[in-house]
Amino acid sequence: MGRTSDARERILDSSRRLMRTRGYTALGVAEICADAGVKKGSFYYFFDSKQALTVETVDGHWAEERRVLEAALAEPAGPVERLRALVECLIGTQRTDHSESGAIHGCLYGNLALELSGQEPQVRRRLAEVFDEQVGMVARLIGAAREAGLVGREAGADALARSMVAQIEGTVLLARVRNDPALLDEVWPSVERLLGLA
Amino acid sequence: MGRTSDARERILDSSRRLMRTRGYTALGVAEICADAGVKKGSFYYFFDSKQALTVETVDGHWAEERRVLEAALAEPAGPVERLRALVECLIGTQRTDHSESGAIHGCLYGNLALELSGQEPQVRRRLAEVFDEQVGMVARLIGAAREAGLVGREAGADALARSMVAQIEGTVLLARVRNDPALLDEVWPSVERLLGLA
Repeated sequence: MGRTSDARERILDSSRRLMRTRGYTALGVAEICADAGVKKGSFYYFFDSKQALTVETVDGHWAEERRVLEAALAEPAGPVERLRALVECLIGTQRTDHSESGAIHGCLYGNLALELSGQEPQVRRRLAEVFDEQVGMVARLIGAAREAGLVGREAGADALARSMVAQIEGTVLLARVRNDPALLDEVWPSVERLLGLA
Repeated sequence: MGRTSDARERILDSSRRLMRTRGYTALGVAEICADAGVKKGSFYYFFDSKQALTVETVDGHWAEERRVLEAALAEPAGPVERLRALVECLIGTQRTDHSESGAIHGCLYGNLALELSGQEPQVRRRLAEVFDEQVGMVARLIGAAREAGLVGREAGADALARSMVAQIEGTVLLARVRNDPALLDEVWPSVERLLGLA
């Protein structure tokens, strides 16, 4: 029991690490199993398909990221400072990647979103849910900033929150193409303009 | 001569159409050749590799898109109206896709940017150049809008232009995940906020 659940976790760890850098299609089950030190025959004991593994990979990545975000948001700070902490958490992974490996690998959800066609509907659905949760977290902070009179009421909180998440994803995309972490510094000034904070 | 150059064009046409919906890795040379009605053996007469084909696919797509954008920008209209026309051109393909095929396929450059790892440096470099050209077109319009006193001078024109391109790419990403063209309607209001137009 201990060993089998350990093998399952090792497959998920390898998938999470490899999928963000290699993508979905280019990454085979055999490669994941080799990285995890698990026999390929065991893979289908734990997962029905690569698609099923990918859904769980997204789940695991988001569970950890959400914990980090919620910890940042629990700090005793004003709503704008907490928005900034959230933005820094979301782009911090890219900065860490670049300083550790020399390459910006992009956001797991964004990478999968633009690679996968309509043939992996379960993954697509799960990605939509993760983005909804991110937008929801941002929208609550925008709501708090409004209560404090820091953000105007011209646009809906959900639309503003989506525009923020879109700005982060789009900037990470441009930073990945150039492999230039300096572009990430432009996210917060853009968010200030989107929210009318500047 | 007529026939061989025709085969080359057919390969490029098929690549352009298939790569945007299927991505890079999942799309094989054999499938492109079958779609183009060209023998696979002929492929390497015209192209050194799939990577070389992809660079030319990006070139061809951008050459046509740039023509459309330049035609829109040549209209006798104010800089903000021309910025809006440019935004509508860039997201119009997604609306057309959805109404014709029921699916938002995303932007060829954005899709490739987030799918490809560092192993296709020629494609990456070409994508960076295309994004630079888009940012340059937007920055010139922002410059004209500033001359007309319509956009403030707090942020550099290049940084503002990059934030606009990032906003478009990020929103297309979210619209693709949800397959929801209504999200595309949020691009222009976001751009108005980024530029301080609203």
